[in-house]
Amino acid sequence: MKTIIIGGSATGMGVAARLKRNDPENEIIVYQNKSYVSLGACGLPYFVADNFQDETKLLARSIEDFEKSGVKIVSNTFVSSVDFDNKKIYFEGGEDSYDELVIATGAKPIKPAIEGIDFENIFTLTSLEDGVNLKKYASRTDVKKIAIIGAGFIGLETAEALKDLNKEVCIIEMKDHVSSKVFDEQISNLIEDNLSRNKIELLLNKQVVKFEGNEGKAKSVFLSDGTSIEVDAVVLAVGFMPNTTMFKETNLNLAKNGAIIVDKKGKTNIESVYSGGDCATSKDYITGEDIYSPLATVASKFARVIADNIAGKEAEFAGSVKSAIVRVFDNEAARTGLTESEAVEAGLSIKTAYIVDKDQTGYVPGQSDLHLKLIMDVKSNQLIGAQMFGANKSTLRINAIAALIWAKMPVDSIMEQIDLVYAPPFARTTDILHIALSKLLK
Amino acid sequence: MKTIIIGGSATGMGVAARLKRNDPENEIIVYQNKSYVSLGACGLPYFVADNFQDETKLLARSIEDFEKSGVKIVSNTFVSSVDFDNKKIYFEGGEDSYDELVIATGAKPIKPAIEGIDFENIFTLTSLEDGVNLKKYASRTDVKKIAIIGAGFIGLETAEALKDLNKEVCIIEMKDHVSSKVFDEQISNLIEDNLSRNKIELLLNKQVVKFEGNEGKAKSVFLSDGTSIEVDAVVLAVGFMPNTTMFKETNLNLAKNGAIIVDKKGKTNIESVYSGGDCATSKDYITGEDIYSPLATVASKFARVIADNIAGKEAEFAGSVKSAIVRVFDNEAARTGLTESEAVEAGLSIKTAYIVDKDQTGYVPGQSDLHLKLIMDVKSNQLIGAQMFGANKSTLRINAIAALIWAKMPVDSIMEQIDLVYAPPFARTTDILHIALSKLLK
Repeated sequence: MKTIIIGGSATGMGVAARLKRNDPENEIIVYQNKSYVSLGACGLPYFVADNFQDETKLLARSIEDFEKSGVKIVSNTFVSSVDFDNKKIYFEGGEDSYDELVIATGAKPIKPAIEGIDFENIFTLTSLEDGVNLKKYASRTDVKKIAIIGAGFIGLETAEALKDLNKEVCIIEMKDHVSSKVFDEQISNLIEDNLSRNKIELLLNKQVVKFEGNEGKAKSVFLSDGTSIEVDAVVLAVGFMPNTTMFKETNLNLAKNGAIIVDKKGKTNIESVYSGGDCATSKDYITGEDIYSPLATVASKFARVIADNIAGKEAEFAGSVKSAIVRVFDNEAARTGLTESEAVEAGLSIKTAYIVDKDQTGYVPGQSDLHLKLIMDVKSNQLIGAQMFGANKSTLRINAIAALIWAKMPVDSIMEQIDLVYAPPFARTTDILHIALSKLLK
Repeated sequence: MKTIIIGGSATGMGVAARLKRNDPENEIIVYQNKSYVSLGACGLPYFVADNFQDETKLLARSIEDFEKSGVKIVSNTFVSSVDFDNKKIYFEGGEDSYDELVIATGAKPIKPAIEGIDFENIFTLTSLEDGVNLKKYASRTDVKKIAIIGAGFIGLETAEALKDLNKEVCIIEMKDHVSSKVFDEQISNLIEDNLSRNKIELLLNKQVVKFEGNEGKAKSVFLSDGTSIEVDAVVLAVGFMPNTTMFKETNLNLAKNGAIIVDKKGKTNIESVYSGGDCATSKDYITGEDIYSPLATVASKFARVIADNIAGKEAEFAGSVKSAIVRVFDNEAARTGLTESEAVEAGLSIKTAYIVDKDQTGYVPGQSDLHLKLIMDVKSNQLIGAQMFGANKSTLRINAIAALIWAKMPVDSIMEQIDLVYAPPFARTTDILHIALSKLLK
């Protein structure tokens, strides 16, 4: 048996590592277009913030590690096409054939086709090179003001990172709220207040229409409202698109955004072809629908599922509730399940509770405000979503709500009495979750 | 309708507050032997540690607050007996009659009957006066060394508090491990290491046989191994016993330790007589058995249940998994459900997983070790217990496990893929819980 994996990031190398353990006889070859593998891209903003200096810390495992385990890695090689009928892949100067194929090409940052987008001081933050380049450029003393386009998680984390480097930072967001895909307005508002408190300039409801500059560098960002701002650098963080251009003209089923459609086993519509991670769809745990959710947690779970299926073990991806957390300076926001907007859009009849309380007792130093929004599906009588905002890791509580969603437990007086830990430095006797559940049950 | 409540702490005042809201016409009278109500006793070690100076911060609500809401409070009054047949209570200089009675007399610290136990520098830590007295005495510069007897949660918290006051602290524990009722050996070991690192002297496997001293003050503590230690003060923290001596000769059903046996509605065996909190039993969520678990979280839930039942609403206590957390200097330990020892004692066939991992990524500052023990019942295929040890509130994850226990979710590949939040400052892509679940499923 010979397995070819296209792509050397989390999903691809996750499949390689587990499949080699599952089935040592399997000949595994990874073709990938970088000089390194297993990048933990989520760490890039923290590298830019200079939390650490050696960028290779972001590589979970080295090529040598994998080679030692018997996985062959062909680096710096771009696979340009696949002949699914004859089970062959093609790259510059060669071809190879497989029994099983795993497409793990990941995603690339969206670069809107606007004037000036190719100025050399417009950065993205996806690859190791991106991180090194942005950090180097931002460390220049003549680089004072940096605009970040997009207020998703990477935009927010990068804003904090650049502020840590003492830059003037401005975020430009086309929607009326930050991170509005993943948070409802109440939580977005809190993040926005926090950004303002931390001297991040926030321009909402504004689209970038063009960049102008000279000597190859953008100097002005022109916005949809006719205004412009002067900058020394720009970070593009407007989202991702699956790296699947090479499959557009093939019979591989793709979603609208180009994501490879896979089932719960990571199987595509073509026999012996698997995919997972940022280049593929995943399943919403609650609605069962195909979704595009390029999260590291989803990628690592799909990697296991694919490796197990290739090795002949039954395994299925259970689904995603898109649980996520983000630190924004001295605060943090966390979410799981559907937002209110998503639930309404899905046609669900819902009930919500929004509570503002405290994370711990007032007499032990360190008490902070804690916000919780719970979303319940009235028909199933189950929790389907939650969002939190707080400080000092108090929002790790969201994992308890993810667990209640995961277990599909009914919202009733038993759930209302869930036995959570209490001690003065950590909680209050009646936790914010109890208060929110009582409100839902009223 | 007239309701008499005996006891002004968490349970009693919790019933009073909610019952008044439920049923404003109900005449509610609280008889209690203190001059204040609603003490959050869990905060006493933090008061002793001088985290705050005004001890009244420990009172959740004042007598005036309650009186304003229409609840009558008779303070400094010790109810000496109850005539259940004629629905009367008796106190010094008077009597009163009720339609419904709530016994919420709480618990008192166990004072072993050993020589010298009444020396004036031997303290307990249960009442507001206890806190004030201990703090005042410990602040004397000639009080240098303090022995704490008992290494339960209060013993541990008090050790930290007294160390904060720059005292030499010694803990004497009769068992071979600290907090062995609530933690298995692996976690107790970690707490013990932490105590040693923080210069707390730990004497395990030793019982106190007598105190000797002069001028009314204990100076020497004699131990079961024939040794003795010199001290300037002693804190007794060997556990609690229900405050129910007055009911010993009545037909009120009491458990072996004196706890009033109640059902899930907080009803005793006597019509119209309720009880709950530290003077009563509660129910184990997993085994369904009557247990004695004097936790603030149990008390507050029973208070709600009792108030609702008196007001004619159906309400039942769902049970307790004894979820708890304790801070020990720069570490924290948390638990929920049954320990391995308890599970074995209950005759359950179990499987356990013990994992040592990290709480977050290594490249963001602040990474700490994180320990997790999971206990699963093989027959029901459900989680029945968990214990964690870590730092920086990373053990708040235990609430997610409490939720999985609460929901009685089967341990399978769906649970194994639970979608927990991830971002570099908070977690790793594969959380310690995922690793432990995978181990259980192997």
